Amino acid sequence: MYEQLFSPTVQHTLDLVGIFVFAISGALLAVRKNFDVFGIAVLAEVTALGGGLFRDLVIGAVPPAAFTDLGYFLTPLLATVLVFFLHPHVERLQTGVNIFDAAGLGLFCVAGTTKAYDYGLGLTASACLGLTTAVGGGVLRDVLANEVPSLLRWDRDLYAVPAIVGSAMVALCIRYEALTPLTSGLAVVTAFVLRLLALRFHWRAPRAWNRRSTVVEGTDPAEAASRKATA
Amino acid sequence: MYEQLFSPTVQHTLDLVGIFVFAISGALLAVRKNFDVFGIAVLAEVTALGGGLFRDLVIGAVPPAAFTDLGYFLTPLLATVLVFFLHPHVERLQTGVNIFDAAGLGLFCVAGTTKAYDYGLGLTASACLGLTTAVGGGVLRDVLANEVPSLLRWDRDLYAVPAIVGSAMVALCIRYEALTPLTSGLAVVTAFVLRLLALRFHWRAPRAWNRRSTVVEGTDPAEAASRKATA
Amino acid sequence: MYEQLFSPTVQHTLDLVGIFVFAISGALLAVRKNFDVFGIAVLAEVTALGGGLFRDLVIGAVPPAAFTDLGYFLTPLLATVLVFFLHPHVERLQTGVNIFDAAGLGLFCVAGTTKAYDYGLGLTASACLGLTTAVGGGVLRDVLANEVPSLLRWDRDLYAVPAIVGSAMVALCIRYEALTPLTSGLAVVTAFVLRLLALRFHWRAPRAWNRRSTVVEGTDPAEAASRKATA
Repeated sequence: MYEQLFSPTVQHTLDLVGIFVFAISGALLAVRKNFDVFGIAVLAEVTALGGGLFRDLVIGAVPPAAFTDLGYFLTPLLATVLVFFLHPHVERLQTGVNIFDAAGLGLFCVAGTTKAYDYGLGLTASACLGLTTAVGGGVLRDVLANEVPSLLRWDRDLYAVPAIVGSAMVALCIRYEALTPLTSGLAVVTAFVLRLLALRFHWRAPRAWNRRSTVVEGTDPAEAASRKATA
Repeated sequence: MYEQLFSPTVQHTLDLVGIFVFAISGALLAVRKNFDVFGIAVLAEVTALGGGLFRDLVIGAVPPAAFTDLGYFLTPLLATVLVFFLHPHVERLQTGVNIFDAAGLGLFCVAGTTKAYDYGLGLTASACLGLTTAVGGGVLRDVLANEVPSLLRWDRDLYAVPAIVGSAMVALCIRYEALTPLTSGLAVVTAFVLRLLALRFHWRAPRAWNRRSTVVEGTDPAEAASRKATA
Repeated sequence: MYEQLFSPTVQHTLDLVGIFVFAISGALLAVRKNFDVFGIAVLAEVTALGGGLFRDLVIGAVPPAAFTDLGYFLTPLLATVLVFFLHPHVERLQTGVNIFDAAGLGLFCVAGTTKAYDYGLGLTASACLGLTTAVGGGVLRDVLANEVPSLLRWDRDLYAVPAIVGSAMVALCIRYEALTPLTSGLAVVTAFVLRLLALRFHWRAPRAWNRRSTVVEGTDPAEAASRKATA
């Protein structure tokens, strides 16, 4: 039973922090997409809880934590209220949001991997679900906003790799029976720092070799269309 | 065990009515998007059954009702046939479709909340799943049709609020042990009437305060692109 | 217990072949959309495993096979590596890819129907889930790539019908207690050949009658926008 590596209160607080920062990122995208206040709330909830919800459905932990813990449900609503009234200020704090989002990434990939293993999945599958927990909410957010998921786009700084490294560290620690609050925290910090470095130095992943330009550069067809139009 | 507030036959008939009207809305969007007959059937099924399917997966009611009740599966196919042959007439009856869709919204949010509570979820989570049951199918419909979900758009008349009110009424009735066929029916009617009023008077939800126009007005990038192009 | 119609090794090999060819189709779309290497891997995994994952969640087979069988997880990564380095060659082999994809379609609709029936679903629901297993991954692929699912588009050669026929054959065989490796293989081959014929002769499904052109022809709004722009 690895899930309770930290004391329940510490773990729960960390979860809520991760949920809050992911909700902020969802709410901000909703404002940019011109959604109304309910759209903002929906995108905040989905971004914050989507990854964990998918993990819980896969491992059979129903009803998922997103629907049993009232704090999980209310935290994104708090983020919605904040963004609704203060979003220019929140956006100005983009660096702050990025840092918190990186923290959420680290926390979620570690917590997701541990919980999946506790439910009897293999090490590879657990690491894979840890990654999904961390990035799934953001993918759902982008799908609902009708955008190409930023996770998949080559012109975004590395996001999956830090989560993969964090999840893999947890899986390796479990494999060698070395998962303690310390090593667990180390995995969180590693994913967190890697993500910050990726942001700072604009690390990107390579695209396929010998890529011929079969689509226009911008990947976003609407952008491309408007570019053609103004050309 | 609140699920059977009405006699099974009445409840089942109401469910099928809700499924039918939601399927019509899915099928009509498919026609507008120029899909073929299978695309129409898929969108009809997804719109009608998607919300309940998600609820059943979350509460662990597997296999979901969508796959165990043949009537649930066949009703959207009936809607597909109707729309396939008669869609100009159906579209001309848009007001009728809107009224039925509002009825579906009311029926689904009440049935969803009650079923979720029966499966052991808390009151807030049950109301939340009731809302999801009512609006989930429409969101899936729009995602599959590659459009911004109309639930999230500020330029659509209120859709979530009537369902939230209906779900909350059911949750409050359960809380105070006052859930009877009468109060249950009252919640359906309240959501139904609120939705009709929203349509009639074009009630809309506010967007974020101090919104700077970071995206062009139309929210739909393609529209925006074409507007730029013709400007 | 119909699932093991073939010897376990044969069945497993067939599954892996189906997963591999679906993964190739996902990876190729990712390259065309200009995704980075992680985007290619994600789209390969989702395309290959998405349909079966959905089926397993619906029938309550958790954790789904996608997360318990390491080969299921690794095969799409192999496809990713191949497409990453060799994609111009793979694309040149488009006919080959189409043939394999048709084989995957046949294998998945039969395996999906059989597995759903083994988990206690009715015949119609089983056939329906067999269809979903076969086409679900491709729909998820297109949704993640922010495109209109090619399954729904009228200007694509028939894809659902061969899978429907294959699934229905299996359901009928079960109904008349005639499901053997032979009839099962016959269903696979029928779906496979029908799909190849659809590709060869560009069979398409009809769109709704009396269709008025409420959207511009291209169905893709961005294309349409750019066409307007250049007009």
